[in-house]
Amino acid sequence: MPYFDTASAAPLHPVARQALQASLDEGWADPARLYREGRRARLLLDAAREAAAEAVGCRPDELVFTPSGTHAVHTGVAGALAGRRRVGGHLVVSEVEHSSVLHAADAHEAAGGMVTRVPVDRAGAVSPSGYAGALGPSTALACLQSANHEVGTVQPVAEVAEVCAAAGVPLLVDAAQSLGWGPVEGGWSVLTASAHKWGGPAGVGLLAVRKGVRFSPQFPADERESGRSPGFVNLPAVVAAAASLRAVRAEAEAEAARLRVLVDRIRRRVARLVPDVEVVGDPERRLPHLVTFSCLYVDGETLLHELDRAGYSVSSGSSCTSSTLTPSHVLRAMGVLSEGNVRVSLPRGTTAQEVNGFLEVLPGVVAGVRATLGVVEPAAGAPPVSDALEIDALGLRCPQPVIELARAIGTVPVGGTVTVLSDDEVARLDIPAWCAMRGHAYVGEAPRAAGVAYTVRRRV
Amino acid sequence: MPYFDTASAAPLHPVARQALQASLDEGWADPARLYREGRRARLLLDAAREAAAEAVGCRPDELVFTPSGTHAVHTGVAGALAGRRRVGGHLVVSEVEHSSVLHAADAHEAAGGMVTRVPVDRAGAVSPSGYAGALGPSTALACLQSANHEVGTVQPVAEVAEVCAAAGVPLLVDAAQSLGWGPVEGGWSVLTASAHKWGGPAGVGLLAVRKGVRFSPQFPADERESGRSPGFVNLPAVVAAAASLRAVRAEAEAEAARLRVLVDRIRRRVARLVPDVEVVGDPERRLPHLVTFSCLYVDGETLLHELDRAGYSVSSGSSCTSSTLTPSHVLRAMGVLSEGNVRVSLPRGTTAQEVNGFLEVLPGVVAGVRATLGVVEPAAGAPPVSDALEIDALGLRCPQPVIELARAIGTVPVGGTVTVLSDDEVARLDIPAWCAMRGHAYVGEAPRAAGVAYTVRRRV
Repeated sequence: MPYFDTASAAPLHPVARQALQASLDEGWADPARLYREGRRARLLLDAAREAAAEAVGCRPDELVFTPSGTHAVHTGVAGALAGRRRVGGHLVVSEVEHSSVLHAADAHEAAGGMVTRVPVDRAGAVSPSGYAGALGPSTALACLQSANHEVGTVQPVAEVAEVCAAAGVPLLVDAAQSLGWGPVEGGWSVLTASAHKWGGPAGVGLLAVRKGVRFSPQFPADERESGRSPGFVNLPAVVAAAASLRAVRAEAEAEAARLRVLVDRIRRRVARLVPDVEVVGDPERRLPHLVTFSCLYVDGETLLHELDRAGYSVSSGSSCTSSTLTPSHVLRAMGVLSEGNVRVSLPRGTTAQEVNGFLEVLPGVVAGVRATLGVVEPAAGAPPVSDALEIDALGLRCPQPVIELARAIGTVPVGGTVTVLSDDEVARLDIPAWCAMRGHAYVGEAPRAAGVAYTVRRRV
Repeated sequence: MPYFDTASAAPLHPVARQALQASLDEGWADPARLYREGRRARLLLDAAREAAAEAVGCRPDELVFTPSGTHAVHTGVAGALAGRRRVGGHLVVSEVEHSSVLHAADAHEAAGGMVTRVPVDRAGAVSPSGYAGALGPSTALACLQSANHEVGTVQPVAEVAEVCAAAGVPLLVDAAQSLGWGPVEGGWSVLTASAHKWGGPAGVGLLAVRKGVRFSPQFPADERESGRSPGFVNLPAVVAAAASLRAVRAEAEAEAARLRVLVDRIRRRVARLVPDVEVVGDPERRLPHLVTFSCLYVDGETLLHELDRAGYSVSSGSSCTSSTLTPSHVLRAMGVLSEGNVRVSLPRGTTAQEVNGFLEVLPGVVAGVRATLGVVEPAAGAPPVSDALEIDALGLRCPQPVIELARAIGTVPVGGTVTVLSDDEVARLDIPAWCAMRGHAYVGEAPRAAGVAYTVRRRV
C-alpha cells in the first residue's frame, strides 16, 4: 500500500528505529545528573548534538534540540525578533512559508509588530530582489524556507542570505523539507528543521543559532539546551533523529537521483494522461521527491478518498480538504488552480512499480470523480442564448462554481461575459486559474450584498 | 546497580516500551490526514487521550498532550493567566513549587504581573489559610503542586481548591510527582503532569483544563491539540505514556504499600545509623517512594560521588551540586539543613535488598567524607579562650563555614558568641539549621563590607 505523503511525515527510518530502541535503555536518565546513568545520558546527548551539527553545518554549541519543528520555528522567530528589538519590530517572510512561520508572523503582528510578506512567482519561488525591496532600517529578521513544502520549489536561499547580510539583517531558514537531502547553502543566521520529515522520530526539532546572532528566548527560564528549549530532553528520540539524519544523508545523492526520475515521470505522464490538469511548482529547481498538480472540475476531498480506496495516500491543498474551507495559501500565492489538488511526496525506497501503479489508476479516478459531479461543457457550436449571463452559485462549494461557469460559457458568444456570484472563497483563486487554462479573459470581481461577482469574458 | 532517583526520571516501564515499539509502526503518520495511515494514527491518539483522561479524572476533550511537563506548566500558567487578564494580573504560587512553575511566575513578574509566594512549614507543606490570605480580588490564578518533588510532602490540594473556589480563583495543580500513584483529589481547574516521572517515555506532558475555565494559549496559532499544544504530536510516545499510566495505576496501591515500608526503614535507620543527620519532609503525609535527609559537615557533591562509586544513584539539593551554587529553594523555604543533602526516590520494583545495601554503605560513606573534611568538634571540657570569637570564613564554600563554626563553638563559654563571616549564600540557611540541631541560639545576621556576619550564642 504505497504511502506518498512523506512531506507530512516520513515513515521511521530503520536506523532511527534501531537507535531509538537502543537508547531507551541507555538514555532515559537526566543528562544533568552526576551519577552514572546521567553521565551516560550526557554522552549520548553530546554525541547526538555533534552528529546533528555536522549535518547542519554548524558548531555543536550553536545547535539545540526542540520538541518539534514547529517549536524550533516559534522559538527561532520569537528569539531572533526579541534579540533585535532595539533595531525595530519589522519581520519579513515569504508568502509561501510553512504555517508555523506564518503563525509566528501573525502573532508578532498581533503583538504590535510589522510584517512584510514577500510574494512568489507562478512557480512558487521568491526573488532576491523581492527580499531586498522588503528589508528596511527597522527590519529585525527575515525568514525563508529552503524549499516549499507543498510544491517542492527550491528557494534562492544563498542569494537571499547575501541580500540580508548586506542589509545587516539575520536570516532564519526553515529547512524542514530539505535538510535530509543536504545542508542549506549560504549564510543563514538561524536554521530550523524537523526530524520526522527525514525519517527520524516525532518529537524532535532542530534550532541552530549562529554565534554572534542576538537571540533572546521568549519563555520562562529553563537551564536545559542553553536556555533555548525548555523541558526534559527527549533523549532516545534525539539520538534516533541524529543517527537517522546521518543515515539519510549517506543515501541522499543516490536516492535523490532515483526519486527525481520517478517524479519527472509523474510530472510528464499526469499532464498527458489526465485532461485539464495543471502541474505546479518549478520543474527544475525543486525537491527530488515531491510533485503537485491540480485537476479541474474535481472535488479534492472525493479525489483523496478515491485514491485512498485505490491504495494511495496523498495529500491536497484543496479547500475542501481543509478544516477552514480555504485553499492552500501556497497555491493562492502562486495564483494556480487549487481544485482537485494532489501532492505526491515519495518516501525513500519508493519503487517504479508503485509510481506506475499510481499513474495507472489516477486517470480513471479523476474521470470517475468528474462523472459524479456531472461535468459537461456545452458543445462549441451551440447557439448563444445571452450576451451577459449571470449565474447564482451562492452556497455552492468548490469545484461547483467553476463547473457552473464551464457549463455556461458556451451559452454566451465570443466577447460575451459570464458572471458567477459565489460565496466560496476559493472562487477568487480558481476562476482566474480556469480562465488561464481555458484561454478566456478574467475581467475581475465586485462585491455584492451576498457573495462576490466574478466576471469572465469568453475569448474562444 | 540500584538507581534511586526516580523523582528525576523513572526508567521506562515495560508496558511503555512495548506500546512505544508497537506504535512506531502504526503511529508515525499525521493524525489530521484523511488516508488510512492518518486514520490509524487518529484512532491511536483518541484511545490514548481517553485512557489518560480516565486516569486524570477529566473528559478527553479537556486533556491535551504537550512535549513535556515543563511545557504543560508553562502553557497552563500562561494560558490561565491570559484567560483571566481582565480580572487582574495577580498569581499565587507556593514557595516550594517545581522550578518550571517558579520560572513561569518569574516570567509573569518580569512582564509586569504580581506574584505572591505562599510559605511552607518546616515539613514543606502549605496551609489552606496561607492560600486564603494570599488570594485577592485581582488574583487570576493560584498554583499548587500535589506533592513536593524534593521532600515528598503531600500538599493539602483539596482544601486549597476549596479556598480557591470560594474566592472564584482557578487552581492549577502540578501533579508531576503524584499522578502515577493516583488521581488528584479536589476541585482543580488546570492540571499538569509529566510521563517520564511515572515510567512513561520522555517527550510527553499532560495539560488538562476543565471546561468553563477561561484559557487563552500564549503562542502562535496551531490547530493541533485544541490549539493548546503546537507541533506535530509525538504519537508513539503519547501512546506509551497513556498505556504506562494505566499500568502503573493498576499496580499503584500494592507498590505504594511496599515502597512505603522501605522508605520508612530508610527514615528510621538513617536517623539511627548516621550521626548529625536531619531527615526532612512530612513523615506521614508524603509520597510513598521518596525520602530526603541532610548530613551535617558533609559536602553534598563528594557524598553523591562516593555513593555513585558505591553503586547508588541519588540526587541532592545541596548548593555544591547545583550549577548556581545555591541550595534547593525547597530546603530553604522549609528552613532545614541543606549541606550533605540526599534525596532517595525509589523506582517501582526496588527490593528490600537494594535498600538494605544502601543503608549498609551510607554510614561509612558519610564518615569517610567527614574524615576528609577534618571535622573535629572540640571536647566539651576544653577551657574557653574568648567570650566573643569571630571567624573569617570568606571564600570558603559549604560545608566549611559550618565546620569552622563547630570547631570554634567549644572555645567560647556558654553564653559567649561565635560570629562567622561568610560570603557563601548557603550559610544563611545552614548556620541557623546547625544551631537548631546542636541546641545553640542563632542571634542573627549583619551585612559586612565583604560577606555577611552570622552570630551564634553558645547554649550548651
